[in-house]
Amino acid sequence: MEETFVPFRGIKNDIKGRLQCYKQDWTGGFSAGFRILAPTTYIFFASAIPVISFGEQLERNTDGVLTAVQTLASTAICGIIHSIIGGQPLLILGVAEPTVIMYTFMFTFAKQRPELGRELFLAWTGWVCVWTAILLFLFAILGACSIINRFTRVAGELFGMLIAMLFMQQAIRGLVDEFRIPKREDPSSVEFIPSWRFANGMFAVVLSFGLLLTALRSRKARSWRYGTGWLRSLIADYGVPLMVLVWTAMTYIPAGSVPKGIPRRLFSPNPWSPGAYENWTVIKDMLNVPILYILGAFIPATMIAVLYYFDHSVASQLAQQKEFNLRKPPSFHYDLLLLGFLTLMCGLVGIPPSNGVIPQSPMHTKSLATLKHQLLRNQLVATARQSMRKNSSLGQLYGNMQEAYQQMQTPLIYQEASQRGLKELKESTVELASSLGSFDAPVDETVFDVEKEIDDLLPIEVKEQRLSNLLQAIMVGGCVAAMPVLRMIPSSVLWGYFAFMAIESLPGNQFWERILLLFTAPSRRYKVLEEYHATFVETVPFKTIVIFTIFQTTYLLLCFGITWVPIAGLLFPLLIMLLVPVRQYLLPKFFKGAHLQDLDAADYEEAPGIPFNLPTEGELGARVSFAEDGDVLDDMITRSRGEVKHICSPKVSSSSTTPARDIKLLQSPSFSGKAYSPRISELRGEQTLRSGGRGHSSPSIGEKGPSNLGTPRTSTSK
Amino acid sequence: MEETFVPFRGIKNDIKGRLQCYKQDWTGGFSAGFRILAPTTYIFFASAIPVISFGEQLERNTDGVLTAVQTLASTAICGIIHSIIGGQPLLILGVAEPTVIMYTFMFTFAKQRPELGRELFLAWTGWVCVWTAILLFLFAILGACSIINRFTRVAGELFGMLIAMLFMQQAIRGLVDEFRIPKREDPSSVEFIPSWRFANGMFAVVLSFGLLLTALRSRKARSWRYGTGWLRSLIADYGVPLMVLVWTAMTYIPAGSVPKGIPRRLFSPNPWSPGAYENWTVIKDMLNVPILYILGAFIPATMIAVLYYFDHSVASQLAQQKEFNLRKPPSFHYDLLLLGFLTLMCGLVGIPPSNGVIPQSPMHTKSLATLKHQLLRNQLVATARQSMRKNSSLGQLYGNMQEAYQQMQTPLIYQEASQRGLKELKESTVELASSLGSFDAPVDETVFDVEKEIDDLLPIEVKEQRLSNLLQAIMVGGCVAAMPVLRMIPSSVLWGYFAFMAIESLPGNQFWERILLLFTAPSRRYKVLEEYHATFVETVPFKTIVIFTIFQTTYLLLCFGITWVPIAGLLFPLLIMLLVPVRQYLLPKFFKGAHLQDLDAADYEEAPGIPFNLPTEGELGARVSFAEDGDVLDDMITRSRGEVKHICSPKVSSSSTTPARDIKLLQSPSFSGKAYSPRISELRGEQTLRSGGRGHSSPSIGEKGPSNLGTPRTSTSK
Repeated sequence: MEETFVPFRGIKNDIKGRLQCYKQDWTGGFSAGFRILAPTTYIFFASAIPVISFGEQLERNTDGVLTAVQTLASTAICGIIHSIIGGQPLLILGVAEPTVIMYTFMFTFAKQRPELGRELFLAWTGWVCVWTAILLFLFAILGACSIINRFTRVAGELFGMLIAMLFMQQAIRGLVDEFRIPKREDPSSVEFIPSWRFANGMFAVVLSFGLLLTALRSRKARSWRYGTGWLRSLIADYGVPLMVLVWTAMTYIPAGSVPKGIPRRLFSPNPWSPGAYENWTVIKDMLNVPILYILGAFIPATMIAVLYYFDHSVASQLAQQKEFNLRKPPSFHYDLLLLGFLTLMCGLVGIPPSNGVIPQSPMHTKSLATLKHQLLRNQLVATARQSMRKNSSLGQLYGNMQEAYQQMQTPLIYQEASQRGLKELKESTVELASSLGSFDAPVDETVFDVEKEIDDLLPIEVKEQRLSNLLQAIMVGGCVAAMPVLRMIPSSVLWGYFAFMAIESLPGNQFWERILLLFTAPSRRYKVLEEYHATFVETVPFKTIVIFTIFQTTYLLLCFGITWVPIAGLLFPLLIMLLVPVRQYLLPKFFKGAHLQDLDAADYEEAPGIPFNLPTEGELGARVSFAEDGDVLDDMITRSRGEVKHICSPKVSSSSTTPARDIKLLQSPSFSGKAYSPRISELRGEQTLRSGGRGHSSPSIGEKGPSNLGTPRTSTSK
Repeated sequence: MEETFVPFRGIKNDIKGRLQCYKQDWTGGFSAGFRILAPTTYIFFASAIPVISFGEQLERNTDGVLTAVQTLASTAICGIIHSIIGGQPLLILGVAEPTVIMYTFMFTFAKQRPELGRELFLAWTGWVCVWTAILLFLFAILGACSIINRFTRVAGELFGMLIAMLFMQQAIRGLVDEFRIPKREDPSSVEFIPSWRFANGMFAVVLSFGLLLTALRSRKARSWRYGTGWLRSLIADYGVPLMVLVWTAMTYIPAGSVPKGIPRRLFSPNPWSPGAYENWTVIKDMLNVPILYILGAFIPATMIAVLYYFDHSVASQLAQQKEFNLRKPPSFHYDLLLLGFLTLMCGLVGIPPSNGVIPQSPMHTKSLATLKHQLLRNQLVATARQSMRKNSSLGQLYGNMQEAYQQMQTPLIYQEASQRGLKELKESTVELASSLGSFDAPVDETVFDVEKEIDDLLPIEVKEQRLSNLLQAIMVGGCVAAMPVLRMIPSSVLWGYFAFMAIESLPGNQFWERILLLFTAPSRRYKVLEEYHATFVETVPFKTIVIFTIFQTTYLLLCFGITWVPIAGLLFPLLIMLLVPVRQYLLPKFFKGAHLQDLDAADYEEAPGIPFNLPTEGELGARVSFAEDGDVLDDMITRSRGEVKHICSPKVSSSSTTPARDIKLLQSPSFSGKAYSPRISELRGEQTLRSGGRGHSSPSIGEKGPSNLGTPRTSTSK
């Protein structure tokens, strides 16, 4: 996206782009059938559960002015609107932790002012939202989003880590509080005598860790060895919600002598309880706010505007990473404009506004990639099987599959993408054919193992549509009505879920991976190289990596720390935004351009594992060419970035052959010690060349056996 | 061992054999220096903790007649005597669960008899021990142990599983009891009000699962990626005891309002408390036992004799598995004779007798293999480094290392073993040299990466000595005095430890692996073949495996079930013993001889992973030739059987090249479905041939790179 600040141009382009595929956004959604429910429920839980407990948090911090009812309402309304008239339907909206923090700051401020106080708090925030909206309009119209490319990895990942830290903090704090007497409760009631409090705390530890561990495991179910396929993928798709249910159910086992209050459960007023409504009429109080404060509201407004501008854009950016091969255009400007309207609306009805959320948005895209993979797979498998029954040759087989694949492609302006996918498909099938030396002979299962091959043939695509987003938003709305049911969930299960989300958001975050690298024993660093890894691991001297990471960590802790400072904390969005200029003008003074480029690879490029020795790389090939559906999807789900490259691996690596001497050098202690000898970057040269090969694995490793391991096959990936 | 029943011959041979290496048993132990403490503490905990809680169990079941003091005393005394004058010092003695069960049966019987009652119970068991001793003498003298080879895998593993089940049962029962009011305690005290009982239960869940999970992880510490080497191996060596300490320490954090009784801790009287001694003088009561009961004591005696004969022999057998390449002779007959004396002694002083225990005995051997590996390694690394400084050629380097290795060998009658080790050493070094094409050129780290190569050169050997056994026995004795300290350990930590032992004993147990195989999704069975696996996986039709496993499981459940039957339970040793004739005469009627042979491979032979495709096998090569000390040892510790083979893998597999067509066949669904196509057994033919190659990995994969992957190197392993 080129940087132009011509008013309205960005918005116009966005709208033009999205309109072209608007119809397909819906048809595509419905065509997926019931399978759409897997990503929907996954995201529904991921966005509802935090919103509910943010609501609880807000209630504690605002003396009950705002509750889960309001946060859920905001999330639902904004979500529904965005999913229907929004630009990028992959983007998930919701009330985010930063918003909660800002509102907390504002409440503590308002409470101290006799002119405002608890009564006029919402009215005042109404004004804040008005100002925020105006600022967002300006940003959107003047094309502020066209500098989105300057929000490089450093900024995005640091923000992601901050969110993860806030989630984790919430989890820990919540768990600790389980041992204490909650403020709002009456301390004399039986469940708060020391013994029951201790019992409740221990119970909470069991529940939250139970949920955390089981949820993490269930996400990997596809690659489990035991159990039938459908069961495994059921668990993988619905495992997390399932675990919430299971652990909630468990808390009803120890009835008997255990008082009702143990374990503590979600607290939130029913939407129909008195007072839960007072916020909706806030608009008529807005004029009672003294003019001075109406103007003063501009200060927090700028902060929130900056925050939303950054948060919304980064969330959208992460949801549209290059590796996903999205076919449909982005829509940064228009979405920001819409966000302005949504904020205004929320402000006027006195509910906290929603914005694009991390990590839910990338999670959404990933779950849709999984969906698309399954759909394509089933279709192609069916076709292949069919044409085999007509015992057609591999040539025809390919023809039919190509056709089927073609049909599943939605005719869009962005055709070359789908073209490319086709080329790949052809290429690898032909290659496979020639490897078998039987292009025209009729094929059977033993020659062309449908189940397995198809996976390897399939490019990564995402089921881009609006349905899943709309449905999850509606379900979130449903939570308001389902409050009595939701209140059966133990709060400790919530804390476990928070920790789960924090952990799920880490893998693939290079900032996190670099932190881990610092703690990796020097003698084991080669293992990092064997796996999929960011290019910097090979090209940047370890010392530089250390310094850079330490700088980033300090900055992160600064951002985290400032959220603790009473009023000044209001400024934390500035600190995050500041990172963009810092990255652009300050860092280059301290780091070599090339190094910085690799440490902050804007488009998340990753290098394939260095072939230490053929076995290792081959092993990757084996993994995938043997992998079922399961393992492949598993990677996509469990890694947040570069997962697609991860899947590309076999083609890339199978086509690489490392001269023995390089291997020798890599093994030499000189390497394992200071790690990055020049020869490695030499090696790397090769790879980036090869990385040209696009995103999917070739079945031929398994097929051709020894023969292809000796000879370089770079040709095929060109 | 040939089956002869000439009186005393077996004993004579045993004594002759062990005397030849008796002196070295001690010198060898002391030469190891402080490192001997790692296996010692590991085994000390593994034998002390169960014995203590068996003591608790006995106390509950015998109304306090027998306590942890007696079980510890028995274990210590028998252990010390056996470690000094016993035959096989790898064998660990202790009061085992079956003994506890038998004593419980006997007590419930005695209590009901007015002539005996609680008072004469010990006196009566004294007579039982007398009879048992006499029977054991007969067994030993008449060479009953020479049929040990008929105790095939089926019997041994079934017994191992039974023990594991008993451990697990104890763990679960103990954990559940944490929610209840213990019999012996006064129910009115504060920690037994419902709230605290529930709190205690939950706390117990946290503690036991905490210990279980952390202990399991810490055993794998050597292959961790993070942390420095010494820290990792420290954790791996002392992790489990460490975790017991850590979790015990944690229970002292929540002081404050929590009553002293939470969590519940180990209960056992001090040895100096009144009544703890009455048993020692039991001998003078023995004549008060009515003659009828003296004779009647023969019935339980036969059971116990059979049990000990089987248990003791199997434990000893498992501690001396073929793969450990033991240099010193076994001593089944003499050890059984000694066991007779020990039983007699225990009976006369009124303490429950000890016998060889599973899984501690095999655990002991494994930890000693680890120790020996470290010792050899350090020695050879030092030598290599030294001769490199004198920049000698690879030829000389090998010479020096051979010398050093030679020196570490203890001159024994069983020389060929050590010879073989040397041959290997030479072979692989020469091979390595030729692979580098530089046999005479001076070597440096880059050519010969000492740290890594040495591991690959080293054969598996066990530090066979008596010191570790003696020390651990003494330490167990020390527990009697340290009772006040021991009683700080929460009982829930104990339950966690029980579960840990049960789980640690499973891997490598083919019975267990077959059960898992039944639950493996057909489409994933190929994964079993990729790893190290028993030969039957390839040669026996799946259906047969299922039937056989179901039969074995039913038999196991029968054995387990009978231990629950009040008095008849006394007969459970018979049921186990019965398995030997069943295996020999009954099973052959239902299963093909060849199949049975593979399903019940007496000498634990295992087949290497099938090279589905070179990458996979190569990957193994990579694993080891790159692996640090850590990973190798890790395998040795974590797998119970075939672990050595597991380490051999690279040599075996690197030397195997599978024709592409075989790979194709393996991939074909026909395989993944019914699994075992004829071609696989064909393939297998190759392997058993290759399995001849002995136990260690060749560094050459990493070294030679592509070149050696194309060409078969079977020659080298011949």
